[in-house]
Amino acid sequence: MRESIKNPPKVTTRNKNHNLYNSQTDTRVYALGGLGEVGKNMYCIEHDDEIIVIDVGILFPEESLLGVDYVIPDFSYLIKNQHKIKAVVITHGHEDHIGGIPFFIQSVKAKEIYAPRFACALITKKLEERRLTKNVKLIEINGESRITTKHFNIGFFNTIHSIPDSLGVLINTPNGRIVETGDFKFDLTPIGKNSDYQKMAYIGQIGVTLLLSDSTNSEVSGFSISEKKVAQSLLEQMRKTPGRLIVSTFASNVLRLGQILEAAVTCGRKVAVFGRSMENVVEIAKRLKVINIPESSFIGPNEINTLPAHRVCIVCTGSQGEPLAALSRIANGTHRFIKIIPGDTVIFSSNPIPGNGTSVNAVVNQLTRVGANVVVNSPLTSLHTTGHASQEEQKLMLQLIKPKYFMPMHGEYKMQKRHMLTAIETGIPAENCFICANGDPIILRNGECFKSNERIQTDDIYVDGNDISGLSTSVIKDRQILADNGLVAVIVTIDSRYNKILCLPSIVSRGFVFIKESQTLLKEAEKIVYDALKEKMQQKTTFGELKNCIRAALEPYLYQKTNRNPIVIPVILNQKEAMAQIIAKTKAKKITK
Amino acid sequence: MRESIKNPPKVTTRNKNHNLYNSQTDTRVYALGGLGEVGKNMYCIEHDDEIIVIDVGILFPEESLLGVDYVIPDFSYLIKNQHKIKAVVITHGHEDHIGGIPFFIQSVKAKEIYAPRFACALITKKLEERRLTKNVKLIEINGESRITTKHFNIGFFNTIHSIPDSLGVLINTPNGRIVETGDFKFDLTPIGKNSDYQKMAYIGQIGVTLLLSDSTNSEVSGFSISEKKVAQSLLEQMRKTPGRLIVSTFASNVLRLGQILEAAVTCGRKVAVFGRSMENVVEIAKRLKVINIPESSFIGPNEINTLPAHRVCIVCTGSQGEPLAALSRIANGTHRFIKIIPGDTVIFSSNPIPGNGTSVNAVVNQLTRVGANVVVNSPLTSLHTTGHASQEEQKLMLQLIKPKYFMPMHGEYKMQKRHMLTAIETGIPAENCFICANGDPIILRNGECFKSNERIQTDDIYVDGNDISGLSTSVIKDRQILADNGLVAVIVTIDSRYNKILCLPSIVSRGFVFIKESQTLLKEAEKIVYDALKEKMQQKTTFGELKNCIRAALEPYLYQKTNRNPIVIPVILNQKEAMAQIIAKTKAKKITK
Repeated sequence: MRESIKNPPKVTTRNKNHNLYNSQTDTRVYALGGLGEVGKNMYCIEHDDEIIVIDVGILFPEESLLGVDYVIPDFSYLIKNQHKIKAVVITHGHEDHIGGIPFFIQSVKAKEIYAPRFACALITKKLEERRLTKNVKLIEINGESRITTKHFNIGFFNTIHSIPDSLGVLINTPNGRIVETGDFKFDLTPIGKNSDYQKMAYIGQIGVTLLLSDSTNSEVSGFSISEKKVAQSLLEQMRKTPGRLIVSTFASNVLRLGQILEAAVTCGRKVAVFGRSMENVVEIAKRLKVINIPESSFIGPNEINTLPAHRVCIVCTGSQGEPLAALSRIANGTHRFIKIIPGDTVIFSSNPIPGNGTSVNAVVNQLTRVGANVVVNSPLTSLHTTGHASQEEQKLMLQLIKPKYFMPMHGEYKMQKRHMLTAIETGIPAENCFICANGDPIILRNGECFKSNERIQTDDIYVDGNDISGLSTSVIKDRQILADNGLVAVIVTIDSRYNKILCLPSIVSRGFVFIKESQTLLKEAEKIVYDALKEKMQQKTTFGELKNCIRAALEPYLYQKTNRNPIVIPVILNQKEAMAQIIAKTKAKKITK
Repeated sequence: MRESIKNPPKVTTRNKNHNLYNSQTDTRVYALGGLGEVGKNMYCIEHDDEIIVIDVGILFPEESLLGVDYVIPDFSYLIKNQHKIKAVVITHGHEDHIGGIPFFIQSVKAKEIYAPRFACALITKKLEERRLTKNVKLIEINGESRITTKHFNIGFFNTIHSIPDSLGVLINTPNGRIVETGDFKFDLTPIGKNSDYQKMAYIGQIGVTLLLSDSTNSEVSGFSISEKKVAQSLLEQMRKTPGRLIVSTFASNVLRLGQILEAAVTCGRKVAVFGRSMENVVEIAKRLKVINIPESSFIGPNEINTLPAHRVCIVCTGSQGEPLAALSRIANGTHRFIKIIPGDTVIFSSNPIPGNGTSVNAVVNQLTRVGANVVVNSPLTSLHTTGHASQEEQKLMLQLIKPKYFMPMHGEYKMQKRHMLTAIETGIPAENCFICANGDPIILRNGECFKSNERIQTDDIYVDGNDISGLSTSVIKDRQILADNGLVAVIVTIDSRYNKILCLPSIVSRGFVFIKESQTLLKEAEKIVYDALKEKMQQKTTFGELKNCIRAALEPYLYQKTNRNPIVIPVILNQKEAMAQIIAKTKAKKITK
């Protein structure tokens, strides 16, 4: 106050350039992914010549992104500023937080990745599979770890989530403290490690400028069901099941997996594990002693049929109806070892992720059809609980951390907005809440936060297979037209010297109409193209014009005949070039001879 | 009993041919669509030379059926037996019961379609749009109607469903009574016409051999929420909304629409209706006096902005997130008349149909983003209720009709199975329940039912646009590969006389890799194809072999370079033919000259 009185012009100056980032003295926070979406989480904190990256995730694409396997964040800004990257911190081992690492370390020189124990094991596996272990140094952290750079002092606190070893992050910056919760829930009767309430409360007490908190379940009222309740329900369900048991859940939900295996052993069953990701996780979890049932309780695929049905529990992947996962193959009768037999009970310890409803439905139908009794999660069965905080837990986080400013992260826009309303209910002023998009920076200056006017470049990068490059929106758009209407390719041979069409155009089609039925249609189309070209070629013309001429002649005809708009691909072969090539080749031969 | 003692050999004979349909004396019941799926309902009852068809629906395809607009039943059996079709009966006006009519009446000569009032109006509209009104005679029926043919005597009873004028059907056959419920629910405090409990009970009393009943909600326990409760919630929600209201619901749910309009008028609002299907339905509903608010309460699109926000209620299509519907266009800012203004409240009086979750989500996010307050249905808000019977209502139907045999219809396999368990709970013996697939006939003989060994031809017929023909599974499969990986076309010009390749192959691609980046890749590919062909053509070869040779050379190369498997389309142009054509043409010209 005194200062503003002493230097009144400073206020004006400050107001004018208020939103401009001062790259020497300001700290800024921005997301390259994770805002306005559930997936590809990547949050950055930048001060002067240092950037801290939190999480490098992927997003599983919507069905309309044809043939896209994952979407990753746009690393351009970090590629340009790679010398600034001082640490990459991972909060936990889910794909939407670690899945982008292989692509990231191939684009950016990041020396060190800090990750908690379980995430470390999963990242190592991932890097080994892609022969990338040498590209990066992986350092294990826990709730007690510290990372210190020139400007930053980073600490952690234990949280609970649907994978072991999840951490929240505290970043002390020159302009104030930032807390990034990672994915979290509170569970008052947890299985495994507990949330560190004391440390969170202590952080709140020393004062936090900005809280970034998980918004996934901000639309869900109340407090989420405890994992212990789910464990009890699973045990009860297994106890009353007479025949063989097949249980499917998320492979990464290792504590749940542990409960399923323990319940199976308690009921006198041996367990067999199927599905590559499930087998990987069980192997890691045994090594890390997260799963502790006796080794003798595990059986191999060939032992299943040597035991009575009530002594067997099969645990497998496929709870989301993934067509190639173990459960789908079991349902379809194409699994190598397991066929459904009458009396089998299949338990889904999971909920369908939005978008997977149809495929889960198909698997449930198929399992029922081949004779299995299928039990899914419902408010009555309590066979699954979420890993994300509901509204009351979000409020608890806000009360423990007591931030001055709040930025809902990790969620679609509507979730961010609902989370903001929850924050306002706990006493955060509305003007201190920031709903940002990816690439919108928040500036921290002397314990205050405001939105920057600038933007950091962000985009959705589509990955097809393992190939990070080469898949642009125009390719996807072509695929959509191909998918909806198929294609018709028109091949025309001309001689540009004499402006002549040398033969009737050839037309081939795919995904358009059934070939046998299309013979007359395409024959007629060839004539239409020929006539149009002949007229066009009476005057001087270019290849581009000829191609347009083919499209203009063909598209209305095909639409009229079939009500479809396939992609028309004109290919013009110039006989003159062909002849020139032959001549050149003949000459070359003569020389070699 | 006495008979079997008198004629013991008859039993053996009967057992032997027990499942064989005797086309003179037996009655049979089968579905051409609607079993094992929710959609394209079409049930047939056949006796001697008569067939009664109940409903002719469509199915909206899954996303994996690329470019398919609808799926319709396979009419082949009815085409072969069209002289037998004595009546087509429609139970109500939903698309999965009437949507197939335009295709049906173009394939089959069906003289008369009997449909209840509201369905009649919708069918008429549909036929007018496609200029098919002359193809069929439409006869309006109600709960009191009777249709009598040589073998059948058909009656109806009023039911409640999420569209006005829904009917259940009673078919008296020479071998016993059949009841087909149509889609139904019970609502103890209904809006509009009530279920005819007395008539159903009477039918149960005179004795029903086989009941076909709606299985859609067989997995939902309890009794569904009353439409009156929804009307109250809507009114409360509207009362407490200060600004402009935008309400979206299913266009066909006319009684709901009526409640929304009445509530709006009660709150002192004028209403504007947007979306073609909504406008159509409102027009029909006003004509049929199902919607009764004063004409002066309706305003046109240009009047919206002349009234204060709290005096306006916009009712529109798009509650399923359909990208071209009014609500999506409003959310995206592309609607001609309506832009979201701060303070707008959007109410979804609907639930997302499975499979539409993602698109509904996208619309909700976009509406929130542009500043609207969005209220969706939940157990707390009660802004929507289903049109289908939950378990307790299904039990009530079973108790009223008291059938000897039971066939769950209208549902996926798991729903049919759950419905069967519900029927068993009410006392139907398990051996008297039939879970059938489309095309599996049930034989009625002297008041008894059993499954036939035969099958009626059924299939999914894909319709793209309005074209019933020409879209086969192989076309869809090509589209899937095109959609996932794009295409590469290879054009080679050879001269088969001299076994020579005349020029370097041309390669074009679409939806494969971004064109600019693929130049070197495709150039190299051209060389690979050229080399492979040159070697191949050193010996005598066929066009088919050359095409295989191109694929064999190119596919591994492209996969190795891009990790993708595009469709490779080889096109071989034979220079010899080209020359022959030119010669022929030149000759022809000379002759004409």
